[in-house]
Amino acid sequence: MNDEPELRRDPVTGRWALVAPGRAGRPITLAGAGPQCRTSTERVPCPFCAGEEHDTPNEVYALRQPGTAPNGPGWRLRVVPNKFPAVRPNATAAAPVNTPGPMSGTTRGMFDDGGEGYRPPRTAPDAFPLFNDAPAAGFAEVLIDCPEHIDNPAQLSDEQLRDVFRAYRERMNALTADPRLAYVAVFKNVGAEAGASLGHTHSQIIALPVVPVLVRAELTGAEAYYVRTGRCVFCDIVEEELANDSRLVARSANFAVVTAYAPRFSYEMWVLPIRHESRYEAITDDESLELAKLLKRVLRALDESQHSPAYNWFLHTTPLNADDPPHYHWHLEILPRTARPAGLEWGFGAHITTVAPEHAASELRAKLKE
Amino acid sequence: MNDEPELRRDPVTGRWALVAPGRAGRPITLAGAGPQCRTSTERVPCPFCAGEEHDTPNEVYALRQPGTAPNGPGWRLRVVPNKFPAVRPNATAAAPVNTPGPMSGTTRGMFDDGGEGYRPPRTAPDAFPLFNDAPAAGFAEVLIDCPEHIDNPAQLSDEQLRDVFRAYRERMNALTADPRLAYVAVFKNVGAEAGASLGHTHSQIIALPVVPVLVRAELTGAEAYYVRTGRCVFCDIVEEELANDSRLVARSANFAVVTAYAPRFSYEMWVLPIRHESRYEAITDDESLELAKLLKRVLRALDESQHSPAYNWFLHTTPLNADDPPHYHWHLEILPRTARPAGLEWGFGAHITTVAPEHAASELRAKLKE
Repeated sequence: MNDEPELRRDPVTGRWALVAPGRAGRPITLAGAGPQCRTSTERVPCPFCAGEEHDTPNEVYALRQPGTAPNGPGWRLRVVPNKFPAVRPNATAAAPVNTPGPMSGTTRGMFDDGGEGYRPPRTAPDAFPLFNDAPAAGFAEVLIDCPEHIDNPAQLSDEQLRDVFRAYRERMNALTADPRLAYVAVFKNVGAEAGASLGHTHSQIIALPVVPVLVRAELTGAEAYYVRTGRCVFCDIVEEELANDSRLVARSANFAVVTAYAPRFSYEMWVLPIRHESRYEAITDDESLELAKLLKRVLRALDESQHSPAYNWFLHTTPLNADDPPHYHWHLEILPRTARPAGLEWGFGAHITTVAPEHAASELRAKLKE
Repeated sequence: MNDEPELRRDPVTGRWALVAPGRAGRPITLAGAGPQCRTSTERVPCPFCAGEEHDTPNEVYALRQPGTAPNGPGWRLRVVPNKFPAVRPNATAAAPVNTPGPMSGTTRGMFDDGGEGYRPPRTAPDAFPLFNDAPAAGFAEVLIDCPEHIDNPAQLSDEQLRDVFRAYRERMNALTADPRLAYVAVFKNVGAEAGASLGHTHSQIIALPVVPVLVRAELTGAEAYYVRTGRCVFCDIVEEELANDSRLVARSANFAVVTAYAPRFSYEMWVLPIRHESRYEAITDDESLELAKLLKRVLRALDESQHSPAYNWFLHTTPLNADDPPHYHWHLEILPRTARPAGLEWGFGAHITTVAPEHAASELRAKLKE
């Protein structure tokens, strides 16, 4: 292969991987830090700071002072294409593989990911070879949260973080227009241990022609739960956690934050809308502000309780253009790097944690401030 | 909950997690190290060294000089219970949940893990609540590869590493006797970044009452491939890689080592028996020696090519007491920590790597020595 990124399907599990040799050249200015530490030794100004716009590709979305020109100062939030993308907007579309997915309406996109396992194609078997690769068509964008060199999203103002959540929605809505795409993955890496290569707080938006395997696993599990009970499993989780409150960390009018019942990392948290909503894109501006305020409170409690651990947050929402499913409910997961995953985690998907989620919730609640 | 370890099922995906507060007290003597480094600053002698047997629980298996007493010197390999186990041999068995798995014969064990998604139970719905937890019944053992303080498994002698592979087999065979168990997870953590807490080379053996989610995903995918093609997907991978050889790193009479086609980490390798074999337990002593010699060669090439990265290796084999499936083929995966997984990996299961597997294979081949 040349240096163009490629999507490859694992022949056993159906997991899609991105092989992107071009990304090897990206700058990494965050020094290695321990799992419980986000300290960095990076240069300031960084390419994401105001005044350094020349160091990033041209913006595709920005919130700006009236009268300021694109790609110069005057912005309070910017979205730019990733300079070292793992996917390419202009990748040539291969012939789609028409394999039926487990959900109606999710076959949009260039390829079906075949669910957790392989699903027989509608076409002849030879049309689906052992090894499947494809040009990695899609978009990789960086959302720069703010013009100042802030490395902790909990230090953004309420309005700044609200704008981040609004921008997630706006970019999802914009990317929906491309029929090659199946899913928009939105996430944030905070700290070197969580995979951040630059400290200046930012999010990533990666639009893919496939539904990623972990979203597919949630869709499949949630659909099966719905078939059995007639209820959304996330609605049931919210109801149970609000009633029981042993894992409830905080709540607002429309959102609940709980520690995960079966966590991958200690202090793992899920933020769920209290009322059923399958798509993140439905979030209003007011709800974005409410979510920002709530999230800042719990992130500060996490920082205080766990010495500012590195973490990721990511949005799980319904794939593009699928029918709005009654069984799937968008949510945001916060995965702090409170331990180093080892062979049991990477090899078997079985995670060992050493803090009970009920204990973690109680500790986080004790650190909450208004 | 008290400090007893607990198995918890994620209500959405069915993934089982181990919550084990008692493990928080374990000693960690390997200092934080970068992703490309295995250097350590630990004390010697360590609890795994000869002469320090008093520092570990009583051995359950050992290779010893004739006439030496258990739990003293004179051993060349020892297996001891983990002093800080994530599972407990004496955990009380809860009433089993009789949910059918995707494979016949895999409902052995205390619980069915419900496959990737939830599967309707045979009993009334109320018998399977939203949140499922259970005592974490099982065995956690540490296999100490050698009495000397060696921290690199590639530096073991051929016979020492052969004995490690034989001991994997012997412990699997011994643990098969407990009908509560469904799976024996065998893995090795090398380097702090790969989750090792002690440097002295050792493996872990964790016997579980459930089939872990990543094994289940492989079983499901491989079974679907078999249904469609009548062939084992692993046999097809071996045949294709031997014929094509762009991802072939090395081979011996009975084993092939390839770089993974759709890797999670750059330089990820799979070691596969060339002839179909569903169970690791079938390995002979001669094959154990052959595997040891082959693995040492590729591990040394990996060390040389990638500056001795941290890595895990783990065995994937058929669950205990399942019928030997024609579609599943044991193998050993080597996952070097050549990058730090970020939000796309942890949140979506989509891995970005920056070295094409074909390039990695060619580089590793160039470093191979006889």
